[in-house]
Amino acid sequence: MSDLLQKAQLVKATTTDLATKTTEQKNEALKLLSAALKEQTDFIITENNKDIEKGRANGLHESLIDRLVLNEQRINDMADALLQLTELADPIGDILEEWSRPNGLQIQKTRVPIGVVGMIYEARPNVTIDAASLCLKTGTAVLLRGSSSAIFSNTALVKVIHDALKQSDLPNDAVQLIEDTSRETASEMFKLNQYLDVLIPRGGKKLIDTVVANASVPVLETGAGNCHLFIDETAKKDMAIAIAINAKTQRPSVCNSIETILVEKNWAETHLTDLITALQDADVEIHGDAYTVSKGANVIEATEEDYETEYLDKIVAVKTVNTVQESIDHINHYGTNHSEAIISEDEANVVTFMNGVDAAAVYHNASTRFTDGFEFGFGAEIGISTQKLHARGPMGLEALTSTKYLLHGNGQIK
Amino acid sequence: MSDLLQKAQLVKATTTDLATKTTEQKNEALKLLSAALKEQTDFIITENNKDIEKGRANGLHESLIDRLVLNEQRINDMADALLQLTELADPIGDILEEWSRPNGLQIQKTRVPIGVVGMIYEARPNVTIDAASLCLKTGTAVLLRGSSSAIFSNTALVKVIHDALKQSDLPNDAVQLIEDTSRETASEMFKLNQYLDVLIPRGGKKLIDTVVANASVPVLETGAGNCHLFIDETAKKDMAIAIAINAKTQRPSVCNSIETILVEKNWAETHLTDLITALQDADVEIHGDAYTVSKGANVIEATEEDYETEYLDKIVAVKTVNTVQESIDHINHYGTNHSEAIISEDEANVVTFMNGVDAAAVYHNASTRFTDGFEFGFGAEIGISTQKLHARGPMGLEALTSTKYLLHGNGQIK
Repeated sequence: MSDLLQKAQLVKATTTDLATKTTEQKNEALKLLSAALKEQTDFIITENNKDIEKGRANGLHESLIDRLVLNEQRINDMADALLQLTELADPIGDILEEWSRPNGLQIQKTRVPIGVVGMIYEARPNVTIDAASLCLKTGTAVLLRGSSSAIFSNTALVKVIHDALKQSDLPNDAVQLIEDTSRETASEMFKLNQYLDVLIPRGGKKLIDTVVANASVPVLETGAGNCHLFIDETAKKDMAIAIAINAKTQRPSVCNSIETILVEKNWAETHLTDLITALQDADVEIHGDAYTVSKGANVIEATEEDYETEYLDKIVAVKTVNTVQESIDHINHYGTNHSEAIISEDEANVVTFMNGVDAAAVYHNASTRFTDGFEFGFGAEIGISTQKLHARGPMGLEALTSTKYLLHGNGQIK
Repeated sequence: MSDLLQKAQLVKATTTDLATKTTEQKNEALKLLSAALKEQTDFIITENNKDIEKGRANGLHESLIDRLVLNEQRINDMADALLQLTELADPIGDILEEWSRPNGLQIQKTRVPIGVVGMIYEARPNVTIDAASLCLKTGTAVLLRGSSSAIFSNTALVKVIHDALKQSDLPNDAVQLIEDTSRETASEMFKLNQYLDVLIPRGGKKLIDTVVANASVPVLETGAGNCHLFIDETAKKDMAIAIAINAKTQRPSVCNSIETILVEKNWAETHLTDLITALQDADVEIHGDAYTVSKGANVIEATEEDYETEYLDKIVAVKTVNTVQESIDHINHYGTNHSEAIISEDEANVVTFMNGVDAAAVYHNASTRFTDGFEFGFGAEIGISTQKLHARGPMGLEALTSTKYLLHGNGQIK
């Protein structure tokens, strides 16, 4: 039997037991893991160095090497995050709805663990601890498949997880790492409907697209963000400019940064030159439509491709529109249903925009950078869903749960 | 461009408009459709007869012909169901949660339409009206793909839908039928992630398995039911027998009927002979383990295969077990996570069973036959989900919805 199948079976076999564990037992395991990470810091760093050396030998770019690195600071941060996770409410066992039927049947809709998560992720080894801990907190088993570039680090971290689980009341096999990082094994994992309840890909667009295109196991799609800021006619100039700068430059490489600014024509006539100057002062390169080019120096003429691009860099497309409906149509055509914002003082336009735009999070007079589990107050984040099933937007612990109906009768038959 | 792609685009293009329609506008369209079905009864029957003649010419089994038939009674029933649907609460626009953050950002989680549903279904043409009406009620567009055996009926019903939509405020293109019923077109539909938000297969296990195995569009899996009844040591004899008979015989062909009865050994010693007699008096064929064979006449010895089989017929497997845990292990191994029941007067065993069994609906002292949207009080049913993502168990209108976060600020930046 393959390593994959064997581990899938091991993980699956723990779900019944794991689902019955109390919040205290789960939190105790997280505390043990936190302590174990600190105690075994040297071991983790030693193993991590093997990945780094291998990466350098293979000519891996320094930015990717940086993602791989586990130093004392980063290991401490992981350990602290585990303690914070113990403070969060455990969603398992919550009664979501409760009612009775005319025949006397009592129905409860309760929250239960989702079963087994298959986690497929790229370089960052901290995802190993992140994913395992969020799953354990919700009584969920997890089959991890990291990348070959982080295999020494991931193997070390899963050893630490097992050391902690052995001391806890949770089943040791609830977390397993697939050591065979071949493409064939990943493809086999995509089809393991018998053992996996959901696949969560974490990484670049290519990885996510591959999983979505090939998996028969349900996928929680966390995706790209081609996000927009629409500046309406009535937008306050200073607010609009401050939000544009923040949403573009505060961290350009993340999915909730904006890529295109849509500017209402009358606002543009008065303020667009100032917006261009402010963006350029913040080192942002502007690709604008003809009108934008006419309102500022050094604006590159935008093409169709610009509106489709998630730059993830200090570049922004700027396009003028005549109406709020034109901005909605542009966003629903080019957007990725992630995060969209309107800056406006006109209540009717705000309502039209917020109802009309098809996205996980729609903002009025605020930066799109808040689409994040921590900023939403969830205290944890599995990822940001850009699909419409199960969970949409930032996913906290509840995204790792399912429901179960419990029905109590006294002999009811149909 | 193919018929499929063209219709997918037409349907998708209506979603923004459709999402803004009021409950009154949607109910008005359903009433118009109800009236149109009654007015065009003759036309529908004429077209339906073409499918029936074609079916008979192709040697279709009479039970399948029966599924195809649309007579005056069935058309009236569909028309009445539409009026009942107008009475149901519209979930769209509901504010599910609402909170504010320390920075003053106000967050609302609201219920919105899911977008576009791709419906793939077999013979019964009434699914055309059923699916279209549930989607319209929730502001959802739908691309229908019925079977070739019902193509005249489905085409006629979609013509009636369009006649009604033309008189309504809803976009006419929100419901489209794919007329090309080839396998290739279905396969192409499975991959239309750009246009479809979810696929819902309705039909036999083979159809559902094909969609699950091949679709990259998220699937709402409505599946098989290998359901069990566990009779605990403390079960009241009359209740246990009445529920066993009801859950097996009231409608053996449906997914929430039981296929295996697990009987605790001490209960079996006293009452199993009576249970066997009662089942046989109700024309049920029994495949039992060795102990069951010893307790009654005409009991066929069960094999491993029996425990895996969804008979969908008046046949039941009977197996004795020593403990409630043994019943849980059997169910979690052989079950399909659909509906499971325990008959017991022992509170501790009931809790162990209900928490330990992994299924959409777990019953105490009631028949599994209640797993159904109408029996649950939802007033409508899209199907019964046996997966853990998005919706689990009977799916009402809410299963056709997604969520959207609306965030109101006054200039917040990160």
